[in-house]
Amino acid sequence: MRITALAGGIGGARFLKGVLAARPNDAVTVIGNTGDDIWIHGLRVCPDLDTVMYTLGGGISIERGWGREGETFTVKEELAEYGVEPTWFGLGDKDIATHLVRTQSMQAGFPLSDITAALCERWKPGVRLIPMTDDRAETNVIVDDPSGALDDAGRPLQIAIHFQEWWIKYRAQIPARGFVLVGVDQARPAPGVIEAIEQADIVLLPPSNPVVSIGTILQVPGVADALRSTTAPVVGVSPIVGGAPVRGMADACLTAIGVETTALAVAAHYGARLPRSASAGGNESTEIGGGFIDGWLVDESDSASVAAIEALGIRCRAVPLLMSDLDATKAMVSEAMSLAGMP
Amino acid sequence: MRITALAGGIGGARFLKGVLAARPNDAVTVIGNTGDDIWIHGLRVCPDLDTVMYTLGGGISIERGWGREGETFTVKEELAEYGVEPTWFGLGDKDIATHLVRTQSMQAGFPLSDITAALCERWKPGVRLIPMTDDRAETNVIVDDPSGALDDAGRPLQIAIHFQEWWIKYRAQIPARGFVLVGVDQARPAPGVIEAIEQADIVLLPPSNPVVSIGTILQVPGVADALRSTTAPVVGVSPIVGGAPVRGMADACLTAIGVETTALAVAAHYGARLPRSASAGGNESTEIGGGFIDGWLVDESDSASVAAIEALGIRCRAVPLLMSDLDATKAMVSEAMSLAGMP
Repeated sequence: MRITALAGGIGGARFLKGVLAARPNDAVTVIGNTGDDIWIHGLRVCPDLDTVMYTLGGGISIERGWGREGETFTVKEELAEYGVEPTWFGLGDKDIATHLVRTQSMQAGFPLSDITAALCERWKPGVRLIPMTDDRAETNVIVDDPSGALDDAGRPLQIAIHFQEWWIKYRAQIPARGFVLVGVDQARPAPGVIEAIEQADIVLLPPSNPVVSIGTILQVPGVADALRSTTAPVVGVSPIVGGAPVRGMADACLTAIGVETTALAVAAHYGARLPRSASAGGNESTEIGGGFIDGWLVDESDSASVAAIEALGIRCRAVPLLMSDLDATKAMVSEAMSLAGMP
Repeated sequence: MRITALAGGIGGARFLKGVLAARPNDAVTVIGNTGDDIWIHGLRVCPDLDTVMYTLGGGISIERGWGREGETFTVKEELAEYGVEPTWFGLGDKDIATHLVRTQSMQAGFPLSDITAALCERWKPGVRLIPMTDDRAETNVIVDDPSGALDDAGRPLQIAIHFQEWWIKYRAQIPARGFVLVGVDQARPAPGVIEAIEQADIVLLPPSNPVVSIGTILQVPGVADALRSTTAPVVGVSPIVGGAPVRGMADACLTAIGVETTALAVAAHYGARLPRSASAGGNESTEIGGGFIDGWLVDESDSASVAAIEALGIRCRAVPLLMSDLDATKAMVSEAMSLAGMP
């Protein structure tokens, strides 16, 4: 069976471990978020791709969930001695080798998708990992200038900062006024992205951040349309349990785009699948969100929302959604497959 | 007093420690060799500049003489796991921070001389360290193809390899057929280089490699002429003691350019100063070597060559030349100053 998943970082990667454990004989393609990618000290860093690669390849720090096991931070400390900014990004020594290979390959002209495939030759993650795009599409966050500066009208000056600055430096503790995926209008899906959705037997949305992970991938031109038109069922796993994100800061992101932090609201945001005939006329919407969810798993604690989600036209089931260990994650994957009527 | 020195790596740096110790109140400018500089894994590495900076700034590995004290090699090991070449260059983790700062600054458009000054703000080497040039001038070594390939005439195919490949990978154990400083004809001296020679009270040539360190600096257009025309005495310290290099592989380099490995031959190669009136007519030679040495220190064991060197028109003295400790090096510096009639 061909399984395609859209994935962000830590949550997505952990879910994918469950996919591989539950479906050892299936071919899994992962479309990774690259909106978080950033140049740090001249190195190209792809946090979500690397988290998936390291997690599935056995190199991830179990404790942190990102970066390498047994990591050291010698280079980071030395950079701080030079007084160069930024100092808030966790650039580990082992990790830097990955970024050096990637950066040099990019400077030699290779596309990120080829470079990712080359890096995966070492890590053997057991999935085909494809970046959502080889082009620049960078998540920026609109915030009130943290310096307190005001605009001409005396209101807080709004500035755009890189997602990582908001997420890591400010720990998402300053309100996001909005997100802008800079460059996405010119971005094309990386080779294989659209085919992986069109030719899948099932598409899974792991419990990744619906705004800055899955939502970013959905903005790449063609991806949302492919989800709307694929014959594969699309089944999502709620990242929201009991009105709060299981981990990460999805609530701050959802608030910024006017979506409630509930399993129901996120399902409604993605939207129930429209009849496929309605979207097959070449008059496809380029709007993101809406129109492609067939099934949605919510946590047991959210069982009260099952009926409301089904009323949207989405098949829904309440099951344990905490990825506390591999068996629990495997069970979630099996529930997602079963919800789609898959063997 | 204004002291200017031309310097390579380890030997030059150790001598400069002696200069600072012997002349604590003098202003010292160091013109550093950049012919050895290399791109490794996308990082710009300047081995000689860094050796001078780390040595004088207290960060050098005492045991190795290059790289940082307490260095680790995590990134290097990880790069090897990815199977990327080259694997023979000793890229340490602490050292990488320096290269990252340099590389990013170069990519931002700053000249190497400005970047070197910025790096020295951390290290405070106590000298003004200037690269010989901000332009590309890369030492390549002509060797018989190590693969054993032959040319059309059945002779060993000659290829050019980067100096570091010859020096480190092959440990100078394959014969050098010649050296080519690629790009030097288009290179200009970095800002301050010519002035440092012209305005010096004395110019010192440490016991650095006369071919691939000092010899490289001399090839930068204008440098040899400045040495010929400066009113400052130029005093060199023989890197050859008893017919062999004190350290390094200068013999292999000298052989390649047809110069004997003796203190006398190196002095003759640099050449006794010509009468300044002969070179002041604007009709200056662009030949390197020859014509600018006023004084030359040889080791006690080479005292038999003093007369022959003096016969060349070079003031010469035989003194202990082993930089076994700081006091010994200080004494060498004092002898060099004294040989030039300096207080």
